[in-house]
Amino acid sequence: MTERREPYLLTPGPLTTSATTKAAMLRDWGSRDAAFIAMNARVRERLVDLAGGRGSHVCVPLQGSGTFIVEAMIGTLVPPAGKLLVLVNGAYGRRMVRICEVARRAVATLEAAEDAAVDPAALDAALAADPAITHVAVVQCETTSGVWNPVEAVAEVTARCGRRLLVDAMSAFGALPLDAGRVRYDALVASSNKCLEGVPGVGFAIVRQTALEAAAGRAPSLSLDLHDQWAVMEKTQQWRFTPPTHVVAALDRALDEHAAEGGVAGRGARYRESCRILVAGLRALGFRTLLPDALQAPIIVTVHMPADPRFQFDVFYRELAARGFVIYPGKLTVADSFRIGCIGRVGAAEMRGVLAAIGEILDEMQVTDRGPAAGRGHGGERRVDT
Amino acid sequence: MTERREPYLLTPGPLTTSATTKAAMLRDWGSRDAAFIAMNARVRERLVDLAGGRGSHVCVPLQGSGTFIVEAMIGTLVPPAGKLLVLVNGAYGRRMVRICEVARRAVATLEAAEDAAVDPAALDAALAADPAITHVAVVQCETTSGVWNPVEAVAEVTARCGRRLLVDAMSAFGALPLDAGRVRYDALVASSNKCLEGVPGVGFAIVRQTALEAAAGRAPSLSLDLHDQWAVMEKTQQWRFTPPTHVVAALDRALDEHAAEGGVAGRGARYRESCRILVAGLRALGFRTLLPDALQAPIIVTVHMPADPRFQFDVFYRELAARGFVIYPGKLTVADSFRIGCIGRVGAAEMRGVLAAIGEILDEMQVTDRGPAAGRGHGGERRVDT
Repeated sequence: MTERREPYLLTPGPLTTSATTKAAMLRDWGSRDAAFIAMNARVRERLVDLAGGRGSHVCVPLQGSGTFIVEAMIGTLVPPAGKLLVLVNGAYGRRMVRICEVARRAVATLEAAEDAAVDPAALDAALAADPAITHVAVVQCETTSGVWNPVEAVAEVTARCGRRLLVDAMSAFGALPLDAGRVRYDALVASSNKCLEGVPGVGFAIVRQTALEAAAGRAPSLSLDLHDQWAVMEKTQQWRFTPPTHVVAALDRALDEHAAEGGVAGRGARYRESCRILVAGLRALGFRTLLPDALQAPIIVTVHMPADPRFQFDVFYRELAARGFVIYPGKLTVADSFRIGCIGRVGAAEMRGVLAAIGEILDEMQVTDRGPAAGRGHGGERRVDT
Repeated sequence: MTERREPYLLTPGPLTTSATTKAAMLRDWGSRDAAFIAMNARVRERLVDLAGGRGSHVCVPLQGSGTFIVEAMIGTLVPPAGKLLVLVNGAYGRRMVRICEVARRAVATLEAAEDAAVDPAALDAALAADPAITHVAVVQCETTSGVWNPVEAVAEVTARCGRRLLVDAMSAFGALPLDAGRVRYDALVASSNKCLEGVPGVGFAIVRQTALEAAAGRAPSLSLDLHDQWAVMEKTQQWRFTPPTHVVAALDRALDEHAAEGGVAGRGARYRESCRILVAGLRALGFRTLLPDALQAPIIVTVHMPADPRFQFDVFYRELAARGFVIYPGKLTVADSFRIGCIGRVGAAEMRGVLAAIGEILDEMQVTDRGPAAGRGHGGERRVDT
């Protein structure tokens, strides 16, 4: 493992991608040429199909990071006279609130703890209490902690209350199911570089066509106007502005590999197995994870810092990187914790590899007390509220 | 030439890049890891140096296409109470006007014909007539036609009138000089994928630091806020939101190759030679170019459609592509014309190659009258005003 020059990225992203996906970038494409147009159409169709949105939803890709497509979704779909209720239990929910504040769109929040899921019953009450709310936004997997939010229940409440749902499925799309035929949402956004295992640089929205058609001229930004992006692409088959052609080509290849693995079910199965191995292994090493198993999405695992003063996170990070595993380098605000991701082109072997490396490093650091400060975290069956 | 599987892209972009630049994308980078942080810092420093901005200006990179960084520059630097005068002689000037309209920023235009340069004397008069104007925007090379606008003279007038200059140098940066020490501007924007010969997916602004410091909290968009992007990057050395790591790695490699070619002077010399060969060759074949030589930037050449009814552009485009040369596929609004680019990783050999291919195709199509409808276009010494 340590001979491998390029480390595995066990982070919230960018992630490890396959060599074949990266090799798809070894060609320059004319973005207005027939070959690229056909590839772009194929990518868009496959993304709609993955979302179960054929016939009701369309795919609108957008240049930039995940935040760009989240902002574009909000700016295009929430009208200036509308009001967005954001369900917040981490940084990505808070970011949607910030997007509204900067764009001066009316926004309300319904907060849950970072180690808890958002609460559909509380949503029901909040919608009853504020008739001005037109839209609800939720993060499917909040990677701040790794918590899996109950989007299905949120969608049910939102629809029953006659409001419209926007889903940030950034770190979940392609691995956690969210079928547009079963779960009612106006838009879902995700990126090329999470569970689809493409490279970063493109986001996309799966948008209900009727909602998009009603949104002409509404966005406060030319670059981030999803209606304009869609209308031009439908008319010309081309992107309005230069697309990151190599990133799109990598996504096309990544979608081939996603299909070959069995689509959402196959990709999700690999990630669940990776997550299971990782969580069990960390607990066996004496760590406590932040979340109870029922809330843990198979995307990223948050681990309490060991109470032992001999545990120095900077050394731990550096030694792990030297052994070929890059994790998120910072401590988090959610408890005193660090995170290890289990998505990207990695699997059971890499999970066992990182666990072996962690064991070595802890021994070298002579860290014996690997649990958190008393009473914190989850050691499997025992749930200790924090 | 025709055996080569991947065609040359003789377009306004995306462009042909070197194999070594593309090969730099064959690795996944953790965007918060030290190796990527060092690469990102190196790219930013080199871009400031290329602009001659060291000590006065900073580099703020941004995810997305060129339009994203143009919109970010305007939204961040023109205050809500400000007013932007856009010098328009093509689509990219008009796009800046559109950006202001969508964002509801006060905007005025000063128009020139698409086959003429913008007029510094007219700018002087316009600034005298409207004291509300705080900022002036100009496109260095307007690729709609290929015209080279006199940014130095525009900067001189703008500074003398006490206003601030924003430059869209998208298709010129790295090949046409524009030294911040000689030419006064508050910001210049460009992209990874034009004369720097990286792949598309990142734009950047070279911004006067004092102007940027004054712009906190001003942008109407979180994603497109250059002040926030800069402040976080200065503080943490990291991008606020996931960068397109592979695109940044390709840009780093492309900047190595730019330096090896002799920087702006070397790159510009190759493009001038390519443009000279292309224009001379097209005229020798009987075509007329749109622009007089004095206005022609060595970036892209606009050619009048032949008057001969046997010339069918669709067939011409397809036959050129079959011979390994992709040009911009559409007819243009500026006269009845098409365009051939001379930037990207191509040179004299490829220019001679495309000219030979064009000659073959014209013969096959039996196009004998290759000039435009009577009296239009430039055949070298003769200038015929249109």
